[in-house]
Amino acid sequence: MSLPKFDVAGIGNALVDVIANADDAFLASEGIQKGSMTLIDAARADALYGRMGEAIESSGGSCGNTIAGLASLGGTGAFFGKVKNDQLGDVYVHDIKTLGVAFPAKIATDGAPTGRCLVLVTPDAERSMSTYLGAAQSLTPDDIDADVIKASAITYMEGYLWDQQSAKDAFLKAAKISRDAGRIVSLTLSDSFCVGRFRAEFRNLVKNEVDLLFANESELLSLYETTSFDEALTQLRRECKHAAVTRSEEGAIIIANGEAHKIAADKIDKVVDTTGAGDLFSAGFLYGLARNMGPVKSGQLGAMAAAEIISHYGPRPLVSLKKLAVQKGLL
Amino acid sequence: MSLPKFDVAGIGNALVDVIANADDAFLASEGIQKGSMTLIDAARADALYGRMGEAIESSGGSCGNTIAGLASLGGTGAFFGKVKNDQLGDVYVHDIKTLGVAFPAKIATDGAPTGRCLVLVTPDAERSMSTYLGAAQSLTPDDIDADVIKASAITYMEGYLWDQQSAKDAFLKAAKISRDAGRIVSLTLSDSFCVGRFRAEFRNLVKNEVDLLFANESELLSLYETTSFDEALTQLRRECKHAAVTRSEEGAIIIANGEAHKIAADKIDKVVDTTGAGDLFSAGFLYGLARNMGPVKSGQLGAMAAAEIISHYGPRPLVSLKKLAVQKGLL
Repeated sequence: MSLPKFDVAGIGNALVDVIANADDAFLASEGIQKGSMTLIDAARADALYGRMGEAIESSGGSCGNTIAGLASLGGTGAFFGKVKNDQLGDVYVHDIKTLGVAFPAKIATDGAPTGRCLVLVTPDAERSMSTYLGAAQSLTPDDIDADVIKASAITYMEGYLWDQQSAKDAFLKAAKISRDAGRIVSLTLSDSFCVGRFRAEFRNLVKNEVDLLFANESELLSLYETTSFDEALTQLRRECKHAAVTRSEEGAIIIANGEAHKIAADKIDKVVDTTGAGDLFSAGFLYGLARNMGPVKSGQLGAMAAAEIISHYGPRPLVSLKKLAVQKGLL
Repeated sequence: MSLPKFDVAGIGNALVDVIANADDAFLASEGIQKGSMTLIDAARADALYGRMGEAIESSGGSCGNTIAGLASLGGTGAFFGKVKNDQLGDVYVHDIKTLGVAFPAKIATDGAPTGRCLVLVTPDAERSMSTYLGAAQSLTPDDIDADVIKASAITYMEGYLWDQQSAKDAFLKAAKISRDAGRIVSLTLSDSFCVGRFRAEFRNLVKNEVDLLFANESELLSLYETTSFDEALTQLRRECKHAAVTRSEEGAIIIANGEAHKIAADKIDKVVDTTGAGDLFSAGFLYGLARNMGPVKSGQLGAMAAAEIISHYGPRPLVSLKKLAVQKGLL
């Protein structure tokens, strides 16, 4: 087996985040479920954008955030996602390339504009997302460069992508290439509503395609249709070799080679915006795993990266995670 | 004289800020003078953007920031600036309108794209700006709606706009309408390099067109070509009725009706990014003046708004300045 060139190849929706403050009454009046991600069409995106407040724009997308976090830790990454050649697409490609991340997918020259995620942050720092996928949903198996997947220690895919058939096919193509190359195939469940829509398919993926699963508590409970965390964890351990289950301020449970490890959450002064918390946990954990640091230190890197991201607005690190990890004695 | 409908009508460059971290070595390698604003063309903008780091985008532009701050204080504003009907133009118009600010200028349907300001923030929180004006420089006298200017207690213009002849003409048209309507004409010098380029014209504006001048210390020293702050202030008091001169952590000097008042800077925990500090001082001061609160309280509102903006990334307030002012007993 050749040595991997990339720590992680990520596959996900390339989205520009449009982040604004909102109160609970606004969410209610828009029929938005707090903490969830909802797919919306272009007309709804225009209408909601028209009513939401002043915003900042930042490259986002769950898996894109993870790969950006990986790069900030000093990891090598590739990201497969689809944008159009418009202003927001330019922003997206600039941001990911400037981090040293490879961006192998072709850029669309026609069709829907670059996708965006309208993120509403309530005073409790919770984020509620309405996503217009736009160009992102036109990712196809043709965009998956087999050489990049083969050269990646871990291929990591977001559950959000599991929607259009062509994206599912891209996903399955990458999983097969990675598995055949003796690499690690990884999936994040992304969102409990995602899991609700595609539970049977996700169960099948976890059992048959995935070596390493990322989930938060509510996603895991939804996957196994139970209210008991212990029961869900027992089920998961039967079906998947490795897993990282995040539980907000209670930290995370890591399952690796049949053993469970508890990781404490990093303490921070003030939670400003939880956008990207799960994505950045994945970044730290994947980096540690790809660099063979073991489940505990990998989990601690995840907790550190998640803590950095929720202490400010936006889903991308504001400081070098590598420097932060060195300061904390993790690298 | 009819009662004003707007507290302030602003005229300036409509720009989307593209904000990234950079170190001093990067500024040096790009030949960028720290703390300055430099106009760049499209090719230079592309090249610099390609080399700068991951960024966030936020509606900006000096005068636009001021009017946004005014709206956050509960003031009524109009903003004259030029964007194109592209993605960044949509962002700009969304952000300004969602604040309740009138946006009377026509939106360009051809020509250069919406302008952007590449803002590099160094670890000392200083910002260095490279501006591609794009559509912003096509503001003409036709864009100035006389009814809006007449209905505004104060018309406020940024020195940055003083570049293209058509923009200068727009500026002078608005000043005449405002003066003839018995309102207040106000100007900010914007940047000491601006002053250096157009010193004679700015001296003429200050003497003959402007009732209220905003400047920081280095701009004022450049205007009067002296290294003595006292001498510059004496000159200014001879030439202009009212003025607000900001001095960073030393606060501000307000000149009003021949009297000088010293305003202390608000203390904050950590200066993160000084982008928009002067713009937000103007916002608070203009709001206070338009609401007839007198020079001292107006200056304190300016100091409060400036302190909020430098405590985080980006040139627009993250919290309601009105609430903040109520908490501080200023409103």
